[in-house]
Amino acid sequence: MAGNTFGTLFKLSTFGESHGVAIGGVLDGCPAGLELDLNAIQLDLDRRKPGQSAIVTQRKEPDTVEFYSGLFEGKTTGTPIGFAIHNTNQKSKDYGHIKDSYRPSHADYTYDQKYGFRDYRGGGRSSARETASRVVAGAIAKQFLKNIKINAFVSQVGTLKLDKNYTELNLSLTESNPVRCPDPATASKMEAYIKEIKKEGDTIGGVVTCVLQNVPVGLGEPVFDKLHADLGKAMLSINAVKGFEYGSGFAGVCMKGSEHNDSFNTDGSTKTNYSGGVQGGISNGMDIYFNVAFKPVATVIQAYETIDKDGNSVKTQGKGRHDPCVVPRAVPIVEAMAALVLADFTLLQRANKI
Amino acid sequence: MAGNTFGTLFKLSTFGESHGVAIGGVLDGCPAGLELDLNAIQLDLDRRKPGQSAIVTQRKEPDTVEFYSGLFEGKTTGTPIGFAIHNTNQKSKDYGHIKDSYRPSHADYTYDQKYGFRDYRGGGRSSARETASRVVAGAIAKQFLKNIKINAFVSQVGTLKLDKNYTELNLSLTESNPVRCPDPATASKMEAYIKEIKKEGDTIGGVVTCVLQNVPVGLGEPVFDKLHADLGKAMLSINAVKGFEYGSGFAGVCMKGSEHNDSFNTDGSTKTNYSGGVQGGISNGMDIYFNVAFKPVATVIQAYETIDKDGNSVKTQGKGRHDPCVVPRAVPIVEAMAALVLADFTLLQRANKI
Amino acid sequence: MAGNTFGTLFKLSTFGESHGVAIGGVLDGCPAGLELDLNAIQLDLDRRKPGQSAIVTQRKEPDTVEFYSGLFEGKTTGTPIGFAIHNTNQKSKDYGHIKDSYRPSHADYTYDQKYGFRDYRGGGRSSARETASRVVAGAIAKQFLKNIKINAFVSQVGTLKLDKNYTELNLSLTESNPVRCPDPATASKMEAYIKEIKKEGDTIGGVVTCVLQNVPVGLGEPVFDKLHADLGKAMLSINAVKGFEYGSGFAGVCMKGSEHNDSFNTDGSTKTNYSGGVQGGISNGMDIYFNVAFKPVATVIQAYETIDKDGNSVKTQGKGRHDPCVVPRAVPIVEAMAALVLADFTLLQRANKI
Amino acid sequence: MAGNTFGTLFKLSTFGESHGVAIGGVLDGCPAGLELDLNAIQLDLDRRKPGQSAIVTQRKEPDTVEFYSGLFEGKTTGTPIGFAIHNTNQKSKDYGHIKDSYRPSHADYTYDQKYGFRDYRGGGRSSARETASRVVAGAIAKQFLKNIKINAFVSQVGTLKLDKNYTELNLSLTESNPVRCPDPATASKMEAYIKEIKKEGDTIGGVVTCVLQNVPVGLGEPVFDKLHADLGKAMLSINAVKGFEYGSGFAGVCMKGSEHNDSFNTDGSTKTNYSGGVQGGISNGMDIYFNVAFKPVATVIQAYETIDKDGNSVKTQGKGRHDPCVVPRAVPIVEAMAALVLADFTLLQRANKI
Repeated sequence: MAGNTFGTLFKLSTFGESHGVAIGGVLDGCPAGLELDLNAIQLDLDRRKPGQSAIVTQRKEPDTVEFYSGLFEGKTTGTPIGFAIHNTNQKSKDYGHIKDSYRPSHADYTYDQKYGFRDYRGGGRSSARETASRVVAGAIAKQFLKNIKINAFVSQVGTLKLDKNYTELNLSLTESNPVRCPDPATASKMEAYIKEIKKEGDTIGGVVTCVLQNVPVGLGEPVFDKLHADLGKAMLSINAVKGFEYGSGFAGVCMKGSEHNDSFNTDGSTKTNYSGGVQGGISNGMDIYFNVAFKPVATVIQAYETIDKDGNSVKTQGKGRHDPCVVPRAVPIVEAMAALVLADFTLLQRANKI
Repeated sequence: MAGNTFGTLFKLSTFGESHGVAIGGVLDGCPAGLELDLNAIQLDLDRRKPGQSAIVTQRKEPDTVEFYSGLFEGKTTGTPIGFAIHNTNQKSKDYGHIKDSYRPSHADYTYDQKYGFRDYRGGGRSSARETASRVVAGAIAKQFLKNIKINAFVSQVGTLKLDKNYTELNLSLTESNPVRCPDPATASKMEAYIKEIKKEGDTIGGVVTCVLQNVPVGLGEPVFDKLHADLGKAMLSINAVKGFEYGSGFAGVCMKGSEHNDSFNTDGSTKTNYSGGVQGGISNGMDIYFNVAFKPVATVIQAYETIDKDGNSVKTQGKGRHDPCVVPRAVPIVEAMAALVLADFTLLQRANKI
Repeated sequence: MAGNTFGTLFKLSTFGESHGVAIGGVLDGCPAGLELDLNAIQLDLDRRKPGQSAIVTQRKEPDTVEFYSGLFEGKTTGTPIGFAIHNTNQKSKDYGHIKDSYRPSHADYTYDQKYGFRDYRGGGRSSARETASRVVAGAIAKQFLKNIKINAFVSQVGTLKLDKNYTELNLSLTESNPVRCPDPATASKMEAYIKEIKKEGDTIGGVVTCVLQNVPVGLGEPVFDKLHADLGKAMLSINAVKGFEYGSGFAGVCMKGSEHNDSFNTDGSTKTNYSGGVQGGISNGMDIYFNVAFKPVATVIQAYETIDKDGNSVKTQGKGRHDPCVVPRAVPIVEAMAALVLADFTLLQRANKI
Repeated sequence: MAGNTFGTLFKLSTFGESHGVAIGGVLDGCPAGLELDLNAIQLDLDRRKPGQSAIVTQRKEPDTVEFYSGLFEGKTTGTPIGFAIHNTNQKSKDYGHIKDSYRPSHADYTYDQKYGFRDYRGGGRSSARETASRVVAGAIAKQFLKNIKINAFVSQVGTLKLDKNYTELNLSLTESNPVRCPDPATASKMEAYIKEIKKEGDTIGGVVTCVLQNVPVGLGEPVFDKLHADLGKAMLSINAVKGFEYGSGFAGVCMKGSEHNDSFNTDGSTKTNYSGGVQGGISNGMDIYFNVAFKPVATVIQAYETIDKDGNSVKTQGKGRHDPCVVPRAVPIVEAMAALVLADFTLLQRANKI
């Protein structure tokens, strides 16, 4: 597998480079008969698109998705949904300076080594622009999943961290601010901090937390395709992600079993939820929640030294229009990938009993 | 995919329940002509097996692997390697008490919900006994990978945490103590702590750190099958794992891009390695290192309340021979899964250029 | 994919060489809750096993299957079913004569070229012995499919061809004779002919016809995974198969559309069935029928000239205990592969509507 | 797998309906560094396109392919190649008459049953229009395969059958006539016959023969993914195909082993080639040749009776612009699918030795 396909039954293949003609994908396996709200799809794309606020990259791209197939009279037909987003704002000139040199902590060097050469314009295939295709497919998955609620939000920017967990937050406030942090006071601080970082020409990391609610019991295919393992892979496949934890996560390491075990209520729900809604790789009906760590964006608008293709040292200067912090725009991407995982397991689950 | 297969070209399918006749697997895609050291495979199994020290479960199982196919005159033939480990110490009686009730934070409830019923003996398929099959296949993968060095070790037990990173440690000391922590002083403390926990009938979590060295540049298949994404999935598929981070990980969130970026040396190596040996999902030749968080084992030897199949509250008592802390035995499992991922990407990499 | 796995959701991986320790497989994805009749499985194995009559190879192998996992209290658990058949009658000495030379029209040469060397004993992995594992899995698939009737039979041996089609035959007579031809008069002629061929030390080809009845409408996943395309691949993967046709097949080439079209009855069934029960790659509820052409077995008990590994011409003599005609024993294999295809599409079909 | 993806490493996913916005695909896994001749791709599309001669459908569609990604400065980058062909000649009105009734021997009925409803315009996804995407990908595969020669041609139309085998023909004449039969005299008869059939408003079946030359030894992944098994599946997945045979095929059934066996020359080649270039599922370096049987096109321009969605009998009349015989346009499709199979196995083969 050359790595551009995700999912087994609800299956997305994406294509496209940052500065090519178009990006897009084929979503195969979406069941027939789903009435699609195309506006909702575009809305998720708008949450991801550049230029939406002062704290994200100021590139302007409408990111309008065109559907080519798989829909008839407003409903999915069960055949593959082909779609494309044409690239309209390709300032390839911006990238002349990286044609022959490798930007530190980008994929320039590794793509060159792996494939022998690369489409250097805007990072080519390694650009996070690819994730727009995921958002399209994820938005379809969300509609398929109907009653399942998928809410991601920013819980940390640099050292600024929410001191409440998701049950203490009003998640409907996530979209009320450009940071996408549901706690307005913290959001303000984060926003100010990101602006400061931007002014320095620097970047900062962050954490996106995601909560999946009303997930039916039984999703996940042990032993390798555990629900949280596929969620983890999905998140780690997003650009700039360095870590994933669910339920008690890394903090759970310090707990004792007697504390960490989630006692049952008589209806099968549990009194606590350190497990994070998954036991033995299978959803147990409780909320699934997880954290996704994003490193600071590698493109800094500063002078730096690096090497060229021939191993010569070169001095250069970061340019272009980049995100000082990636997490606000990553929120819909995290949701999209979670939706794709859940949609796939929902279909797989149908095959489990005679 | 019903979830019991791992890998695309170097592909392992496992079978087996804790207390069934045998566990085992089929390893398909191991290239032909590899001279196999069967002792080395058994050695890794011995590192995982129960009863090896005072701080692990006292069950006694020899865990002897039998090979059924795929080998001829000491070498792999390119055909699937079938193998089995017969279960010899199946004290099924030990599990009568869980037949009709659900142990908290185990997979009893979810398996019953997913499949309609379950093999309750020793956790059945959800038991970590399944990982012995992974260790067999991983040990073969290690031999295929030859020059790549794969070293996992225990870096944290409860709150006891190594204060050195892997470059400051002598990894050859990992096997010198039953905890598998390469720092003897810390190992002693961890060992004492685990014994104490065990005396309480309780359990504790821990972290396994793993370092992959001499990995050639170019492994990983973006965009979904990024090297670290598949490593993450591999680790998250191990029983009791709650989190995965690589390179700077969750700590990288607090860094600025200007700090986090890894400057190049003229030979393509980097001066720092916050990236953790992977850029854009592709190995860059630097060391790959990651942390895997394990929750405390759910089986505590204490009285507890839970529910039965019909939702009635029942009082019961944890029994059996269980691990107070899973990380010492998890070390070879983490290595095995890392080896499987690297072997698969090594084969996939051969398809990348004309 | 290294080629030893068949199916997407109902998925069989096999292992094993003709003269290794054991052959067997892992059947993953069989839904939970299926009460398995183990005798019925062994019965299908007995239909395939050597030594069952005077017209098949006189090797004696009990071919007793052992199940290692996936069953509990007589029912499938939804976890992988591991199984093995130990090889008991490995007269490896019989194969000393082929160690260093290539038998014409066998896989000796190609395996050596592909893998660098081979397990030459009895053909190793290329031996039809591998199909015993398919028969085990296929017998489980049959039980899962319940109401679907799967009947294969011998319709041609050399030029001796049934002059009736399946609707004119009493398929319950198939097992009444060693040829497995449901027309007793033709069966006698075929049997006599095979004995004659055997006396000559020669072999002869044949055709197996298979009929699938009560297949529900809707199985098959266009466009690539058409029902008949996967049936075709399944059949072509059986040793010695040279051709596959379904419905009107090669004869349909000579028909006009106005003749070939199957008019509908008002209940959706069709008046004729040139389509062979599949339209657009999807079952239409009518009988599915197809023919599978088998070449004459390559092992003849005659003197012949061939080459050795180094390209030297060598004279040798066919030995061993071989089938003069493969089709009688191929009948249960054809049924098994058909059952695996139908079981897989039955599970896939569940994912098609919202 | 929802069935719209073909291949494991050289992997094509297609999308698109006959009368939707566009058809197209994503070709993932094409190795980097391949200089692509875009004209050659368009040329193969032109060989498939409607309106190219008097004996094919008179629909006019330019079938111009647009590439969206995966190419940079004329070469493949190793990233997925996204492409689309916009539909320009969608006379949807032509299909009003089939909206509510099922055409015999089409996929109307089965799609409706499988998915609950269908895009009825021009057959939607079941239209052979989908194969244009295969031709694009196949043309890329051909360029990747370089030295391998892939030649398909028409060998039979109705009962008019070439009486020479491929070694007696000049395959460079295939494109010299609209039938694509390399024997000019037979081609003339076939052409006249097809015109006659067309005048009757009827259709006729045919056979496409394909020859693969210079295929290296070693392609094919036994046991399930035998080279000829995947070729067979590839061919059977093409619209209207009813049968596949390779090498001696169905005729081989009547041969004795002593006749059928292909004796070796000292260089590993064989004196005869009844095996058809494949032994044990692996190419042996000899020519691979196979026949593909196509039924008569189901759309006849005649009055006929059928049923509607509610099972009522309706009288209707075949309309539209259809092919009287599908084989002339099927030639490039057969070649494309053969190329995709060979390209995939070429990449897989790289993983076979250490």
